[in-house]
Amino acid sequence: MTDLKIVSVAITPVALKDPPLLNSSGVHEPFALRSIVEVHTDAGIVGISEAYGDDATLALLHRAATAVVGTDVFDLNELSRRVAEAVGGSEASSPTELIGAASHDKTVAQAFAAFEVACFDAQGKATGRRVVDLLGGAVRERVDYSAYLFYKWAEHPGDYDVDPWGEALDPDGIVKQARRMVERYGFGSLKLKGGVFPPEEEIEAVKALRQAFPGRPVRIDPNANWTVETSHRVAAALEGELEYLEDPTPGIPGMAEVAAKTSLPLATNMCVTSFAEIPESVRLGAVRVILSDHHFWGGFRATQNLAALCRTFDLGLSMHSNTHLGLSLAAMTHIAAATPNLTYALDTHTPWKSETEDVLVGGGLTFTDGAVTVPSGPGLGVELDRDAVARLHEQYLTCGIRRRDDVGWMQRVRPEWTGKRPRF
Amino acid sequence: MTDLKIVSVAITPVALKDPPLLNSSGVHEPFALRSIVEVHTDAGIVGISEAYGDDATLALLHRAATAVVGTDVFDLNELSRRVAEAVGGSEASSPTELIGAASHDKTVAQAFAAFEVACFDAQGKATGRRVVDLLGGAVRERVDYSAYLFYKWAEHPGDYDVDPWGEALDPDGIVKQARRMVERYGFGSLKLKGGVFPPEEEIEAVKALRQAFPGRPVRIDPNANWTVETSHRVAAALEGELEYLEDPTPGIPGMAEVAAKTSLPLATNMCVTSFAEIPESVRLGAVRVILSDHHFWGGFRATQNLAALCRTFDLGLSMHSNTHLGLSLAAMTHIAAATPNLTYALDTHTPWKSETEDVLVGGGLTFTDGAVTVPSGPGLGVELDRDAVARLHEQYLTCGIRRRDDVGWMQRVRPEWTGKRPRF
Repeated sequence: MTDLKIVSVAITPVALKDPPLLNSSGVHEPFALRSIVEVHTDAGIVGISEAYGDDATLALLHRAATAVVGTDVFDLNELSRRVAEAVGGSEASSPTELIGAASHDKTVAQAFAAFEVACFDAQGKATGRRVVDLLGGAVRERVDYSAYLFYKWAEHPGDYDVDPWGEALDPDGIVKQARRMVERYGFGSLKLKGGVFPPEEEIEAVKALRQAFPGRPVRIDPNANWTVETSHRVAAALEGELEYLEDPTPGIPGMAEVAAKTSLPLATNMCVTSFAEIPESVRLGAVRVILSDHHFWGGFRATQNLAALCRTFDLGLSMHSNTHLGLSLAAMTHIAAATPNLTYALDTHTPWKSETEDVLVGGGLTFTDGAVTVPSGPGLGVELDRDAVARLHEQYLTCGIRRRDDVGWMQRVRPEWTGKRPRF
Repeated sequence: MTDLKIVSVAITPVALKDPPLLNSSGVHEPFALRSIVEVHTDAGIVGISEAYGDDATLALLHRAATAVVGTDVFDLNELSRRVAEAVGGSEASSPTELIGAASHDKTVAQAFAAFEVACFDAQGKATGRRVVDLLGGAVRERVDYSAYLFYKWAEHPGDYDVDPWGEALDPDGIVKQARRMVERYGFGSLKLKGGVFPPEEEIEAVKALRQAFPGRPVRIDPNANWTVETSHRVAAALEGELEYLEDPTPGIPGMAEVAAKTSLPLATNMCVTSFAEIPESVRLGAVRVILSDHHFWGGFRATQNLAALCRTFDLGLSMHSNTHLGLSLAAMTHIAAATPNLTYALDTHTPWKSETEDVLVGGGLTFTDGAVTVPSGPGLGVELDRDAVARLHEQYLTCGIRRRDDVGWMQRVRPEWTGKRPRF
């Protein structure tokens, strides 16, 4: 086989419609930003991946894109070195505060991941192998996802398309949303995005879900919007009711305090979102489940390293999701299928995406009984729909959003809103 | 690309001549045992690796060999599952007590590694890629090794070939041996296998080496043959003189006690030789350098996972060696070249091997300025010399040794010998 050197990289920012989903920061804006990364090689093979699409990420990706030209798609160490050099001392940036504090390491990891995934896709296309096979082989051909439930408004403030999900502002609304989502997708696990309403209301929502879906695992994620005291109270009220309690309170020491007083496993994608944060967390026993995410942990191999760390320290492994398109879903499915100890159902925002919006030929992957089957073609096994990419890029150009700002969008409706955490 | 399914596995035990090298267990026997594993695929491609060759290992390899037939060489997860199942509840065995206590996990890891490395070789041959490239790319094309110095007798008791190295039983002998080894191979680092003579004599040997080779890093490895008290004394005497102090005393708690009183980094390939042993070591701060070894850590990917763990917990990473042939040297070179934080010069027993004995075409890899260049061909980039394998297999058949027994061989000369540790 000849080399497979990168000759150019195309980065296309896209915007997809996003419903008014509520969280501890505020509310999702009418459009979410992503980017499509295409790595062109001298053999004519093109590897693709999906990344964040905010201005800061795009600037980083463009700098890295110039630097990686000439690298072989198998030479991930060289790719990493060049991306780190290109990112250099540039100010750390995070596409959202909902995945924890920004750091230089995380900034490099995010930029690298976008290229690493595309390189794996190219490797697969070149060798006629699926990415899951290059990652060590599928331990499961079907990857389970969870129903990601959100408190939400019926519609955005202003003149925007109305999503089909309707309002969900109380336990009844959440149960109704869950029923609809479970009926449509077949999810076996439920996750409630909390930190929105007073904890007592969210406790009621969890209990309503438990009653409506007996035996189905339920998680709640208030995105660190509770004090340690509040977390103690909620944890006590939900003992035995949760699969795990995700990021009740900010910071590793705070999480450790909460963990010390509950039998519920604490999970995180906020206080441990990089390797550098693992030692303190292990020392303090802060969390028992880490939510991986190849987009910010540094790609597929980094996720496998994280999985090995979790095995070694007897930590559970799950997977986090930000709003995404089908290309990210394909990547998530491949790495999850190759990771034996990723045993929890993964988060995904797919149900919140308009069914008519995606970047893949065929409109994206589908769920059966809550699971996505690993695509069977070489590489990631999915193909870009050029017209669809062009449409979503056009939408990016006209949507007016250039960085995610859940706080600012909430301020349209509630001018006094600050998004400051913990609020309860 | 079609599948690359394993259709059969050949396991050939071989014996190579071994000089009377002294260690804390006793003395090397006149022959060391290894095995050559050949994984045949339905595409006609054959992947090769080198493993231990004692009876217990051979029995395990044979059981696993039957179980892995039908597995694709890329499907390492399935390979792992099948090997673990084949090993089953069989009694844990270790090819030598010098790599720590046996455990079930380590037994599985050892058996798996033999197949995983051969599968990587096959993957490389099938894709036209070097193993180092499949492992993420070469961060270095030349891998540094250290001069592995041993106290030794001039010859074995009995009627055996005499090696060309002569006797080394005191600081002068060790310095003379080092000079010869450095002249011949160009090694830039020196490692003394200690735990043989009273510590004061070995301290003198280290100091003599430091004087004879100014500026060159020196390590000493008494294989846990010192009490904590003795270790404190030796560490104090060698403050500032050692690159690291390897396994002065048995067990993680003992190592932690030694570590607490010295500025010398402690290293190990005895008290932390599996992932299960890492948490306690981290908690107690027992070691600052882990010596990897793909043969017992579970192969290439496991070594990369170990490397990620070491990066995360700010531990150094080096590499251990048992007596081996050129096929293992090739494997060690590939994984080291792909591992950025494997920054110490690796251990190798290569100089102790007869120059006329190897299993590779061309007689094995060569050292220039203490380093081995990563072979350039696909896979591991080396080829079996069938006649050489046959000769060493014949030697295996006639040598009479079926498991390593340094204690027993020492008892030929010193009947009262027990090999009990710590002796000093």
